[in-house]
Amino acid sequence: MRTQVGIIGAGPAGLLLSHLLHLQGIDSVVLESRSREQIESTIRAGVLEQGTVDLLTETGVGERMKAEGALHHGFELAFEGKRRRLDLTGLTGKSITVYAQHEVIKDLVAARIAAQGALHFEVSDVSLHDVESSKPGIRYRHQGEARELHCDFIIGCDGAQGVSRNAIPEALRRDYQRVYPFAWFGILVEAPPTSDELIYARHERGFALVSTRSHDVQRMYFQCDPEDSVDHWSDDRIWAEMHARVDSDEGHKVIEGKIFRKNIIGMRSFVSTTMQHGRLFLAGDAAHIVPPTGAKGLNLAVSDVRVLSEALRGFYKNDRIDLLDRYSETALKRIWRAEHFSYWMTRMMHRLDDASPFEQQLQVAELEYVTTSRSAAMSMAENYVGTAPV
Amino acid sequence: MRTQVGIIGAGPAGLLLSHLLHLQGIDSVVLESRSREQIESTIRAGVLEQGTVDLLTETGVGERMKAEGALHHGFELAFEGKRRRLDLTGLTGKSITVYAQHEVIKDLVAARIAAQGALHFEVSDVSLHDVESSKPGIRYRHQGEARELHCDFIIGCDGAQGVSRNAIPEALRRDYQRVYPFAWFGILVEAPPTSDELIYARHERGFALVSTRSHDVQRMYFQCDPEDSVDHWSDDRIWAEMHARVDSDEGHKVIEGKIFRKNIIGMRSFVSTTMQHGRLFLAGDAAHIVPPTGAKGLNLAVSDVRVLSEALRGFYKNDRIDLLDRYSETALKRIWRAEHFSYWMTRMMHRLDDASPFEQQLQVAELEYVTTSRSAAMSMAENYVGTAPV
Repeated sequence: MRTQVGIIGAGPAGLLLSHLLHLQGIDSVVLESRSREQIESTIRAGVLEQGTVDLLTETGVGERMKAEGALHHGFELAFEGKRRRLDLTGLTGKSITVYAQHEVIKDLVAARIAAQGALHFEVSDVSLHDVESSKPGIRYRHQGEARELHCDFIIGCDGAQGVSRNAIPEALRRDYQRVYPFAWFGILVEAPPTSDELIYARHERGFALVSTRSHDVQRMYFQCDPEDSVDHWSDDRIWAEMHARVDSDEGHKVIEGKIFRKNIIGMRSFVSTTMQHGRLFLAGDAAHIVPPTGAKGLNLAVSDVRVLSEALRGFYKNDRIDLLDRYSETALKRIWRAEHFSYWMTRMMHRLDDASPFEQQLQVAELEYVTTSRSAAMSMAENYVGTAPV
Repeated sequence: MRTQVGIIGAGPAGLLLSHLLHLQGIDSVVLESRSREQIESTIRAGVLEQGTVDLLTETGVGERMKAEGALHHGFELAFEGKRRRLDLTGLTGKSITVYAQHEVIKDLVAARIAAQGALHFEVSDVSLHDVESSKPGIRYRHQGEARELHCDFIIGCDGAQGVSRNAIPEALRRDYQRVYPFAWFGILVEAPPTSDELIYARHERGFALVSTRSHDVQRMYFQCDPEDSVDHWSDDRIWAEMHARVDSDEGHKVIEGKIFRKNIIGMRSFVSTTMQHGRLFLAGDAAHIVPPTGAKGLNLAVSDVRVLSEALRGFYKNDRIDLLDRYSETALKRIWRAEHFSYWMTRMMHRLDDASPFEQQLQVAELEYVTTSRSAAMSMAENYVGTAPV
């Protein structure tokens, strides 16, 4: 089998890239180890930057998002018993959309299938070959048979645990990592929204986030030990913890409901450089991970493939190689900006058992500052909505 | 001997407070363990916020500062071989004045002496008594004799190592501290200025700062080990280090000259709360220390005594006790703002041997951001010139 661009991984990065290339008349094949049902039901992020929303809308896959997603013009910061609002739209002119990542995936899969795009699920034994040549290939098994995909370029969109990154020799790579000594305990709840907007809470007991999915399903998180188990947390214990961390002195209370899913999410920052080796390019989680605090993961994957699709168009339409050669450098600017922002917000909002009481006290000083200085608020807002300069 | 306000310490806090009280017709006595020559020659900070300059000018002690100090409208950030300017005045409408702390002290001592203020140098064996009563006292030795000063209030302006803070019972105090694993190596140099403005440099070898004192004396610093000794550093070695850290790819070079003083300055952050106990109040370094990176130490001492002099005026002129009772809370807002800013700038600019390569890389990302985002630049500028909200 032959195509122009072989894409490994049908997450947001791989699916969107395939979609963008298709719109430019460039052929691709997407290989995914999981089933369609799996990728369409895995619960992940839910905050889309306006740039992400605009891209999905402009390329014809934004209809359901527009109907079902919720436009948010700000969020609340809860600390020291008070609530202060960050007015994203007032500060930046932009907004964010709360729409779950697996819904984006459903929309992209539907668009690729409608366009008769080549999308192969449940492939196994994927390996990359000849990436340093102009004729790279991907070998894999599908429906019991060994196959090979010949292509001009391979794009590794197979996430942090995928095989693509390891096809770049270690001697050429430099990886940066920070594993945080805490995790998020996530729950899905049948309840109306606690608040019109997201609530990020910093409390001595630890961070908490009240988010939403729809008018009757809510997503909430609280900081926990990464070694903890969902089995240790009864519903009553969870609600006691959420109330302690989020309820305000002015009487705002988290609205309880039936908890129908619990999971624990580890947190780390990770950047792998370079993102290119010969004809292999990495995009999304395959090259970088952010802690979920800044809601940047999905948006970074989108910005990677936006850069990459333009570079590939330059190659196919104008014989340009320079955009591809600059891909890693171009993408990394935005990646480092998002990595810094995510790290900063994580450090400001979480209980830091590894920090001194002095540094813990600085969290409060910084939250006071961010919620009273227009320039500091604008800096946080421009990063959150995704318009900070890179 | 009796006075209204007994002040321990003739640093900027104690001298300025005595001066401000005098202008309001409130008597004070200042007790200092060092000699006049010592306090007038100790080399310390040199960057005055515009608010500090305005206060000194309005109260009649700004004449020589105006003539000899240098008005700066920005500074340079050097990193990754480049130089980028932070336009303080363009961003905030304010400027800073470079004028050495010991010159401020000379001006204040001269003003106090001209006004026949009571200023006793070389006192010893200072102890505080009855601070919980309305008739506190200070016992000390002066010119061989034991003396006692009876007063309404005692103000502890005797620095980090002074006796005042320990007169607040430990059970009522909460201290926050962070000792940094690096120090500044400071030199005084006979040379013309390297640059019109200060240069703060972040380099893999460590931080450096090129500052100035006058047209022919310069003040420079470079990050070193706190356990290092000036004896290990020949002039040649010092200049090699300064060039390596500060010279830019575009050909800017540090200007060398005769080095006539070398010293090593430890770095820590420290906040002691509360700053009041009965009739005892702490101001300046007696209550808080910042690392020198943000140039906040002297300016914080000035803002403490500004708040305190207004509270004391309220007491003597209007029988108000509430301003005094709120002193600690009021002063601590600005102190925590400055502590956070100093910590932040210190972490961004220094080689962090205790940080991961990921966090080291974030320094570059943050410097890129601060020098390209208007809101981030404004946030740094408003803190540096001292107009950030508290």
